[in-house]
Amino acid sequence: MMTTPSSITSNELNFLVYRYLQESGFTHAAFALGYEAGINKTSIDGNLIPPGALITFVQKGLHYVELEANLESEKFDGDDDFSFLQPLDLITKDVSELQ
Amino acid sequence: MMTTPSSITSNELNFLVYRYLQESGFTHAAFALGYEAGINKTSIDGNLIPPGALITFVQKGLHYVELEANLESEKFDGDDDFSFLQPLDLITKDVSELQ
Amino acid sequence: MMTTPSSITSNELNFLVYRYLQESGFTHAAFALGYEAGINKTSIDGNLIPPGALITFVQKGLHYVELEANLESEKFDGDDDFSFLQPLDLITKDVSELQ
Amino acid sequence: MMTTPSSITSNELNFLVYRYLQESGFTHAAFALGYEAGINKTSIDGNLIPPGALITFVQKGLHYVELEANLESEKFDGDDDFSFLQPLDLITKDVSELQ
Repeated sequence: MMTTPSSITSNELNFLVYRYLQESGFTHAAFALGYEAGINKTSIDGNLIPPGALITFVQKGLHYVELEANLESEKFDGDDDFSFLQPLDLITKDVSELQ
Repeated sequence: MMTTPSSITSNELNFLVYRYLQESGFTHAAFALGYEAGINKTSIDGNLIPPGALITFVQKGLHYVELEANLESEKFDGDDDFSFLQPLDLITKDVSELQ
Repeated sequence: MMTTPSSITSNELNFLVYRYLQESGFTHAAFALGYEAGINKTSIDGNLIPPGALITFVQKGLHYVELEANLESEKFDGDDDFSFLQPLDLITKDVSELQ
Repeated sequence: MMTTPSSITSNELNFLVYRYLQESGFTHAAFALGYEAGINKTSIDGNLIPPGALITFVQKGLHYVELEANLESEKFDGDDDFSFLQPLDLITKDVSELQ
């Protein structure tokens, strides 16, 4: 697979998590994280972050793992069935277990 | 691109966020989320979730968007330079803007 | 009874409550109150506040009400039995009910 | 001075503090204390607690200390001026210092 230097920073991830907590109505957790992670001190322009950004990226992350698992599977056993996997499996297992 | 029915549930995502808050030392936010999201009532077996799971999936989600952007780019202009994109661009822009 | 102009300010009471939360091990509540009440912005010198100050004053407040109730009682019916009252009665009832 | 066996319990004081936080609009601190102190598990009937109960009792506690200080003062030097004291002095000093 490709390697890539794009790497999310802590500040960026904290901001996505903060937004997720707010959007989900977890007001007390959002309040606490706001201070613990110093959200108001980041230089991130909140207006640029689309709603649901954290969900979107985690969801795409699952697709990426699914893609990896299917590609690996094909490589080793020529099986060309593209299988859909359960999110919890994608989260808890590694690629070799998912094939 | 492939479509997939794998979709993360709110409970699963809340659990990943909860773990992230704990692992990052955001103890007050983790405490609040624990109650607000009813984390202790989920049936998810925490022992199965690897450390850093949220970061891993968001990171893979960024790679997925990057992959999409590069594939789209190639399709339209035959450009085969694989470009690395900034995480904040991946988060804030859509695929057509990233090409 | 005597009247007195001594009146505690919100800042002073918030500080006593904050200390109580800390001393009682209610760390998450103390953290939240710290920010919500702007504890760190008060000019109160925390070193001057003795441990257990809130408990001490509430306790003395109960004694004061008890004293009032017994004085009132004596005034009306000449009864000189000094009676000890339950804290919850002192909190929930007014002086006329306590006699 | 009189001695009295009336002693407030932790549960009772926690409840008064919880109410104070709610009434003061410190919603995040109230939320955290609710869980940390197990407020919902107490057998205290919240309907019996009058608004502003904590303030009332701390205020009466200050009057009690003021009364003590004036009584002590009179005892030792025959001074019959009743002096009004500052709340912060009442909180931070002991009776002998207040005379």
